[in-house]
Amino acid sequence: MNQGIWDHIKVVQYGCGKMGSIIMRYLMEKGAQIVGAIDADDKLVDKDIGEIAGLGRTTGIKVKRHEDTVLDNCDADIAILTLQSYLPDMHKPILECVTRGINVITTAEEALYPWTTSPAITNQLNALAKRTGCTIVGSGMQDIFWVNFPALMAGGCHKITEIEGAVSYNVEDYGIALARAHGVGLSAAEFEKKIAHSLSMPAYVWNSNEALCMRMGWSIQETRQKAVPVFADHDVHSDTLGQTIKKGDAIGMSAVVTTITHQGVVVETQCIGKVYEKGEGDLCDFIIHGEPNMHFSVNKPDTVAHTCATIVNRIPDVLSAPAGYCTMDKLPLPRHQSYPMLLDRGRCQ
Amino acid sequence: MNQGIWDHIKVVQYGCGKMGSIIMRYLMEKGAQIVGAIDADDKLVDKDIGEIAGLGRTTGIKVKRHEDTVLDNCDADIAILTLQSYLPDMHKPILECVTRGINVITTAEEALYPWTTSPAITNQLNALAKRTGCTIVGSGMQDIFWVNFPALMAGGCHKITEIEGAVSYNVEDYGIALARAHGVGLSAAEFEKKIAHSLSMPAYVWNSNEALCMRMGWSIQETRQKAVPVFADHDVHSDTLGQTIKKGDAIGMSAVVTTITHQGVVVETQCIGKVYEKGEGDLCDFIIHGEPNMHFSVNKPDTVAHTCATIVNRIPDVLSAPAGYCTMDKLPLPRHQSYPMLLDRGRCQ
Repeated sequence: MNQGIWDHIKVVQYGCGKMGSIIMRYLMEKGAQIVGAIDADDKLVDKDIGEIAGLGRTTGIKVKRHEDTVLDNCDADIAILTLQSYLPDMHKPILECVTRGINVITTAEEALYPWTTSPAITNQLNALAKRTGCTIVGSGMQDIFWVNFPALMAGGCHKITEIEGAVSYNVEDYGIALARAHGVGLSAAEFEKKIAHSLSMPAYVWNSNEALCMRMGWSIQETRQKAVPVFADHDVHSDTLGQTIKKGDAIGMSAVVTTITHQGVVVETQCIGKVYEKGEGDLCDFIIHGEPNMHFSVNKPDTVAHTCATIVNRIPDVLSAPAGYCTMDKLPLPRHQSYPMLLDRGRCQ
Repeated sequence: MNQGIWDHIKVVQYGCGKMGSIIMRYLMEKGAQIVGAIDADDKLVDKDIGEIAGLGRTTGIKVKRHEDTVLDNCDADIAILTLQSYLPDMHKPILECVTRGINVITTAEEALYPWTTSPAITNQLNALAKRTGCTIVGSGMQDIFWVNFPALMAGGCHKITEIEGAVSYNVEDYGIALARAHGVGLSAAEFEKKIAHSLSMPAYVWNSNEALCMRMGWSIQETRQKAVPVFADHDVHSDTLGQTIKKGDAIGMSAVVTTITHQGVVVETQCIGKVYEKGEGDLCDFIIHGEPNMHFSVNKPDTVAHTCATIVNRIPDVLSAPAGYCTMDKLPLPRHQSYPMLLDRGRCQ
């Protein structure tokens, strides 16, 4: 049982928006200590994290705008970065933590396995983390649901020729940066110009496909993607953008990423990120083509909650991983970390 | 990549019926060496395993009736036992291998985690295996699909109060011993007398529930089960029994096993084993009640093929496990082991 470990884990929450506020509640309910909170949003600065996390009490820890103020004045084991999706945007905030020897776990989707999409940044961060003795890990929904899930089920097959996946998420759940990266609100022409041919934006399943190949022991020959806009067939309101997307404009996109391995196995995952309408739920569906074939899925996964829970459950793995940039395929399997209050309730019944 | 290891693994197949014949084909396609085959069935004795496994060629290895003849005259790393479901029936064949220092992997359902249902036998086998330096493992469908699958997905949850499962299989696929243990063909009165209150027959999910608890780090307070017969609502033919089951007689049973843990979490799994009718498929459905809730499933899993593939994929884990009775919760996660001919084809393209 792990409940004891949480008392000794000191965390800085770097990014206190939608994801950060849930993560902070999970951390406090597990018994971890939040020693600092950073966000540049005027609506959050100087608010107590107890209020942001909906604890119904104050903690004395307030959100600060400037990362240096926080990071220089606390004794943190790990920083949880819930900021941007891509490593070029995450380079500076990760550096700020790693130069101070603070371990990093981040929801940045590219960070899951960035060795082919941002090799120079990853290598630099890896070298620095080794020098300062800390570990950098990218995790979240993809860690379990897009990588370890199909990798585990593959253990039930004799032969595999292809792994085919379809995942989706509501871009409304992840803030404005992600919505913009998905072309939400763009016209067909704007999408074609800004998103469709952009090589600087690997779809999130690019990185998860490659992590899956690494986890399976397959070496990557080539990864390619195509971005297909999803257009609104009637006006759709986006809370994140604070505007109504006109019929015919993009409500998101579907990225089909195909990873070909030297072993002859193909991993092809369709990643649909769009503004959902009422009643729609996330997809997490996989088919293994082989002997035998297998079809497995999660029914409307609660992507936001699973991302936050996975991040928190991963913390003990990050703290015991070797120093450096440690992709999730090198970590042990994510484990549910017990929730000590449940244990207490069990004892009191 | 693991393709090299198979050349050096020498296997005795102990039980050459439905499961054994598939396992032998998988083994030979992976490149393992089958050095002996045992079965008491007159229809199989003295047949070449190449014929039984449908290889289209002979191998020179013929099925022998007497285990001593085979086990005393080959140099085997591991024996694969596909015989009976319960440890009291498996005690002798496991002993025969373990006394000779031959590692054992078995599809016997109780063997997955037999520490509470057959503690004395398990302890004796454990002691002997430690002395002779070999390892005993129970695996098959349950290893991945009933235990590691829900355990992995639990890593995406913050709190868990209950794990609820429903699995099913066609008793027609597993031979006559399993069909009898499920009460197939019994009248309501016979079922009530022979099966319903039989404490000597833990349902297969008894052992998998407890393995799941161990895997999660939860300690078992109590496991209980109820056996509910499933009756035919019209005449149903059973190929395994070679008879038609009359309307009103049992086509199998549903066992509901409830495992209560000291941590307050409950694992309840319904295990339905019955004679299927045309179009029916296996179930493998789980719901985690917690924060958040999660519903995940495999759509009509090919239980026989997954059992055989999991057994073969587990062999490297058995060979590198410590000596003794090693339940699957102590093993690393099952991994797909590459299929070398696929690799060769990939290279030749």
